Amino acid sequence: MEIEFIGWLRDRLPDHSCLRLGPGDDAAILALAGESSVVVTTDLLTEGVDFHLEKDDARRIGRKALAANLSDLAAMSARPLAAVVAVALPRDGGGSLSALELAVALYEGLLPLAAEFDLAIAGGDTNTYDGPLVISATLLGRVTERGPLTRSGGRPGDQLLVTGTLGGSILGHAFDFTPRVREALLLAERYELHAGMDLSDGLALDLSRLADASGCGAVLRTDEVPISAAARQLAGDDQAAALRHALGDGEDFELLLAVPPEAAEALLGDRPLDCDLTCVGQLVEGSGLWQESGDGRREPLEAIGWLH
Amino acid sequence: MEIEFIGWLRDRLPDHSCLRLGPGDDAAILALAGESSVVVTTDLLTEGVDFHLEKDDARRIGRKALAANLSDLAAMSARPLAAVVAVALPRDGGGSLSALELAVALYEGLLPLAAEFDLAIAGGDTNTYDGPLVISATLLGRVTERGPLTRSGGRPGDQLLVTGTLGGSILGHAFDFTPRVREALLLAERYELHAGMDLSDGLALDLSRLADASGCGAVLRTDEVPISAAARQLAGDDQAAALRHALGDGEDFELLLAVPPEAAEALLGDRPLDCDLTCVGQLVEGSGLWQESGDGRREPLEAIGWLH
Repeated sequence: MEIEFIGWLRDRLPDHSCLRLGPGDDAAILALAGESSVVVTTDLLTEGVDFHLEKDDARRIGRKALAANLSDLAAMSARPLAAVVAVALPRDGGGSLSALELAVALYEGLLPLAAEFDLAIAGGDTNTYDGPLVISATLLGRVTERGPLTRSGGRPGDQLLVTGTLGGSILGHAFDFTPRVREALLLAERYELHAGMDLSDGLALDLSRLADASGCGAVLRTDEVPISAAARQLAGDDQAAALRHALGDGEDFELLLAVPPEAAEALLGDRPLDCDLTCVGQLVEGSGLWQESGDGRREPLEAIGWLH
Repeated sequence: MEIEFIGWLRDRLPDHSCLRLGPGDDAAILALAGESSVVVTTDLLTEGVDFHLEKDDARRIGRKALAANLSDLAAMSARPLAAVVAVALPRDGGGSLSALELAVALYEGLLPLAAEFDLAIAGGDTNTYDGPLVISATLLGRVTERGPLTRSGGRPGDQLLVTGTLGGSILGHAFDFTPRVREALLLAERYELHAGMDLSDGLALDLSRLADASGCGAVLRTDEVPISAAARQLAGDDQAAALRHALGDGEDFELLLAVPPEAAEALLGDRPLDCDLTCVGQLVEGSGLWQESGDGRREPLEAIGWLH
């Protein structure tokens, strides 16, 4: 199966300037042009947790495997460079596809996204076994001149900004999101950013992680949290439920940024992105996660979210 | 589970000079000191194909996941740099271990090997799901001054050398082998090598691949093939069966090298390695895989081996 598949894939892999040697040898060779550092991230998606092959199109699953990793590169404000993709395929295929057709469909989903973000597919491993579909991608990225954006650089007083809207990703966004790579690179180039991460497990939980890593507390103005239409749809008329979706659903794959006040003001004035950008709170001295409602009262906020 | 596991792991990951930022953020950052290129390889191991959790110790499985990739770096004569490891764990664990204990045991097997080869564990993803154990590692390596060793550089007249002995890896070698990283680096530094690969699918099949990639044919002197004690044990008194094990069993993880005649002569005279090094044939004009027996007759040889 693997040989047939590699034959199919080779014909579809575009040349890429960073690939000195592509798939087919014992390893790939990437041209780095004397980079001083490289960013590496890996994400593994499994049947029943991250997708359901019986109902989710395999192209969307393949796309998501890359997109989730691209979101991690965006979180570091790194430029996508190359990916390797490892797949464990059910021996008899799945979702009405044979194993080979399934492998092809996964790549039909991920190749266009790789092209969109100028990501070289440097290699992979595609095996069959008696088990459900597992797909694991590892991505390499280049750090820009501004250096990498980490979770630990936040300081008290930093404003907390999020891109897009949050919650309800189960209705489609969890597969169809566009990773915020362009947005992260543009913001990092033009503005001083102290810290950042991507929202994969829910704003409340992820913010608590960023605040911890930065040695700060965080105050969230819950009235300001941009709630997605999907979250509102799931919640019906229940405003509190809609907020809980936005805080805890996870898989938003939006950016959470800690930005010094002057830069935040400039950024919110300029509105340089095509997507929403909302100030939802700030980092504070101390520790813990707090919510502040419209009347200014501050209460502890539970770090709800998706725990693996 | 993942949070407990990361807590366990962080306490056990040594500092590494190449890690500018280790596990815990959205991605890791590797210091490259202006390398012009980097080698990347990935291997995915699955329950029932590459191991059987009920009988194989999880430490050996974890070790093998790294070792198989290290063997690919050796095949490129690249110096190990960093690894990321993605694991899909059965939700209820396996082999009498809970999921957390299983994750720990995998790492207890792979961490000493990483230390032995100065390989940084840069990150990973450890998830539970309703399926069998799958472990995927991606390794990065540095190319040495001599450049990478590929499969395609062989020329007619090159002597074919293999390290170690072949066949019967199922009796233990498939788990306990030491990847030939040190051997590959030493040979690449001291001798002119034209092409190389690691033997993962059987000498006959792998040699046919190296010959194809180099645009050559290959002649194997079957009387010279170094047959392992394990292959002889499996074959009993059947000499032909022992040879078939050596040619086709796979998972030898030895090096196959195409070496110009003068360098091969020097190398076989110097014997610079602690392990066996045997000349088993040569590359020739044309194409195809041939065997030559003691009496000099040349016949086609089937490219037997382990097809995935």
